[in-house]
Amino acid sequence: MATPSLAERVLSGDVRSAARLMRDLDDRLPEAETTLRAIFPSTGRAYVIGLTGAPGAGKSSLTDKLIAHYRAAGKTVGIVAIDPTSPFTGGAILGDRIRMQDHATDPGVFIRSLGTRGHLGGLSRSTADVVQVMDAMGKDIVIVETVGVGQDEVEVAELVHTAVVVTVPGLGDDVQAIKAGILEIADVFAVNKADRDGADRTARDLQTMLEVRHTVGPVSSAGGGTWHAPGDGLAHPVEDLAWDPPIVQTVAVTGQGIAELAAAIESHRAHLQKSGAIHRREVARARAGFLMLLRERLLSGALEQLEEETGRLDEVAGRIARREADPYALADDLAARLRSR
Amino acid sequence: MATPSLAERVLSGDVRSAARLMRDLDDRLPEAETTLRAIFPSTGRAYVIGLTGAPGAGKSSLTDKLIAHYRAAGKTVGIVAIDPTSPFTGGAILGDRIRMQDHATDPGVFIRSLGTRGHLGGLSRSTADVVQVMDAMGKDIVIVETVGVGQDEVEVAELVHTAVVVTVPGLGDDVQAIKAGILEIADVFAVNKADRDGADRTARDLQTMLEVRHTVGPVSSAGGGTWHAPGDGLAHPVEDLAWDPPIVQTVAVTGQGIAELAAAIESHRAHLQKSGAIHRREVARARAGFLMLLRERLLSGALEQLEEETGRLDEVAGRIARREADPYALADDLAARLRSR
Repeated sequence: MATPSLAERVLSGDVRSAARLMRDLDDRLPEAETTLRAIFPSTGRAYVIGLTGAPGAGKSSLTDKLIAHYRAAGKTVGIVAIDPTSPFTGGAILGDRIRMQDHATDPGVFIRSLGTRGHLGGLSRSTADVVQVMDAMGKDIVIVETVGVGQDEVEVAELVHTAVVVTVPGLGDDVQAIKAGILEIADVFAVNKADRDGADRTARDLQTMLEVRHTVGPVSSAGGGTWHAPGDGLAHPVEDLAWDPPIVQTVAVTGQGIAELAAAIESHRAHLQKSGAIHRREVARARAGFLMLLRERLLSGALEQLEEETGRLDEVAGRIARREADPYALADDLAARLRSR
Repeated sequence: MATPSLAERVLSGDVRSAARLMRDLDDRLPEAETTLRAIFPSTGRAYVIGLTGAPGAGKSSLTDKLIAHYRAAGKTVGIVAIDPTSPFTGGAILGDRIRMQDHATDPGVFIRSLGTRGHLGGLSRSTADVVQVMDAMGKDIVIVETVGVGQDEVEVAELVHTAVVVTVPGLGDDVQAIKAGILEIADVFAVNKADRDGADRTARDLQTMLEVRHTVGPVSSAGGGTWHAPGDGLAHPVEDLAWDPPIVQTVAVTGQGIAELAAAIESHRAHLQKSGAIHRREVARARAGFLMLLRERLLSGALEQLEEETGRLDEVAGRIARREADPYALADDLAARLRSR
């Protein structure tokens, strides 16, 4: 009997094989891409939940408690923990992950941390790959946990079915801005550390903002043209005004509100399925993943060509820095060849 | 006498013309690109300072006080305030900007806020453009203020000469991770709100982390290949271990420590010039800007071609979502044409 391929072993749920595939993807080995292609037709089964919010909001603890909740319900869980704060160490900082050690020996739980090490396709591309692998492994639920409030989160939100935005009472002035900006991404709000002063007020503020949104509707993006790229700010392009994002108060460290949070997520899932919006969201997920892939392929191809024809990128950059070369002309020239065929 | 062109008016420092160019860039008008090209040879004079840190760290107040400092020294200042938290409103939230109203009537100060509205090239590309325009206007100093701690900040850090990382005492557990991750980006640290408990400890923690870094050195990115793209996590690729990032305690609201912060920035600038590292950093800036440009050009070109040949992106995404089309094959095919010429 032939030895099963890496793809077959991943599809059977083998943890070591999945971990190896993820490492190979990190190292951008060509075989890893081949395996990713082989598993692709078997993906699209996992339910993907995003968990995002500012640093210090307690997302890791919430994730920890959600894992326990889903495990108790007999579901297998994959976690993608993104730590974009470590560009140079080539990996995520493990401190927070220690909290998840309860699950370290549970074969129904697979945890993968991502840093922002040098990938042409960016962090969101790597996240999309890891979600695919966990999906192929047969995980029922995949939770994508992100730190920060930037464009990465908007991109990552395009990859999930239900986006949970985590906030806490009283983080300061800027938090108002975050809440306002992140409104359109959120399918569910968690006000964590709800045992602190101001939790009710934070929840009320969110509610008010959601009501304003209902009245005026989202402001459409101007000047965007036909195409939307990942990170173009149009997360969940199929806006679903029939859904009122619930606001759940939680205290992750004690487990308070976790069942309610899981119920709110489940309620959103049921809404997507009942309204048919799940199909539009699947298309949006596919679109975002495809654009991330395309962006990476194009850039790496163009840079190879540039190296062959024009010289090393650093030499080109040196000429640009001395204002001897025109970056616009160079970029136009490289891009025009694609268009002219 | 011929009417001066928009480029000429921007180069003469005309505020209305610069504001119009920025709006045209936002709207991606082709003329705006032409103007950007025309001003390009006259750029490269401004000194660009990045100011980044978590929400609530008081970056806007610090920026405000730095403006006053530089104005008092007779320097003109441009500010690019990036608010990536507002993907849908198509612009930045203005709350924080109100604090800067002292400077609203000062012709030596030009403030521009950026949201994350739908740009193929992403937020960092828009930032690069605005920095170029302010540079062309003749601003002596350009300050780029970013909210958040994600990949955007790593990209934006590649565009600046001196990166100031702002932190505050006691923001919670996750802050440790941020500090550790952002170490390699920072040329100067500001511990703001230093009148709060724990400021000395935060400064000491930072110092300890910097010392560890000196001992073990940065961990290089594995598997990256030859090329680095914007956002590949290799901000300031020319790492400068001859520079010890100073740590300055500030209280932005009272102005305490602002002169020291400005002195630390000036000291880094002098170091770059004395050591010759300024040239390497200029090359790194040019490289990052060029790659952002190329990424945008390639993606928009490829998507036009896809639309012509394969059908609308949403239809393609629908086929991918139903697993009828292979996104890897589609992306490879589009990218291969560029390479095969």
